[in-house]
Amino acid sequence: MNNMTLMTRLEVVVPAREAPDIRELITSSGATGYTAVSGVSGIGHHGQHSGALLFNEYDTLTMIITVLPPDKATELIDAIRELLGTSSGVMFVADTYVSRPEYFQ
Amino acid sequence: MNNMTLMTRLEVVVPAREAPDIRELITSSGATGYTAVSGVSGIGHHGQHSGALLFNEYDTLTMIITVLPPDKATELIDAIRELLGTSSGVMFVADTYVSRPEYFQ
Amino acid sequence: MNNMTLMTRLEVVVPAREAPDIRELITSSGATGYTAVSGVSGIGHHGQHSGALLFNEYDTLTMIITVLPPDKATELIDAIRELLGTSSGVMFVADTYVSRPEYFQ
Repeated sequence: MNNMTLMTRLEVVVPAREAPDIRELITSSGATGYTAVSGVSGIGHHGQHSGALLFNEYDTLTMIITVLPPDKATELIDAIRELLGTSSGVMFVADTYVSRPEYFQ
Repeated sequence: MNNMTLMTRLEVVVPAREAPDIRELITSSGATGYTAVSGVSGIGHHGQHSGALLFNEYDTLTMIITVLPPDKATELIDAIRELLGTSSGVMFVADTYVSRPEYFQ
Repeated sequence: MNNMTLMTRLEVVVPAREAPDIRELITSSGATGYTAVSGVSGIGHHGQHSGALLFNEYDTLTMIITVLPPDKATELIDAIRELLGTSSGVMFVADTYVSRPEYFQ
């Protein structure tokens, strides 16, 4: 794709109060940047483990997006997955391509 | 990808007044959550059917993102496609991966 | 995927002051629309060429998303890549699917 380089894009949506912890994981993973969209609304994913009804809670959410090389992403994904274990946050992971891979190393 | 599970990510951008209809379709589809980014600006896609010039209208838009299992996504995609038939909204569909698939069932 | 059509999705995150230049490139590329999320925060990707430390600058950022046919995307990607050569902005490119391809031609 246009001489572009494959990267991994993480999109994490968490209650605003949990955003600092996610950002800290991102920076300590070696990712060279992130984008945060605050003031996002939504309905949380409670899942079956909580026993709660779905769609019963509106949270103030923050969406945090970061892009990093696939080999670095593995560790960050595991760390965020663990952090989200006690959260109603969600993480979406997808392939993406960048034109200047040196920015993300 | 890191023991993650393939899901389908829908990103719908519609004029703010149409967002409630989209959210209702999402919740009735069995999706367990969504994220909404409001106050988004943009230039609508009018397409050929309207006969209007492109790039002639600024709307206040809402971006709604939901992630659900591919088999559930099919029906929702069709429903949103039909709803958008009379709208200037757009829908983008992509693969994504999640770490906790039980949240999205 | 549900009779949908493959498109290319560009997500560009730039300091707010550079957003007009990106929008102009998008409109002149033949893309029929875009979505802009302003008031985004983040930490820029400075890359190795600047010699600056990473994570030392907070910018007010704008995220601009556009979707267009793959053959049109090639030229736009190259143009944005060149524009970003003197910027701390980043561009992420991914596959996406749309239900109404005529809106994006």
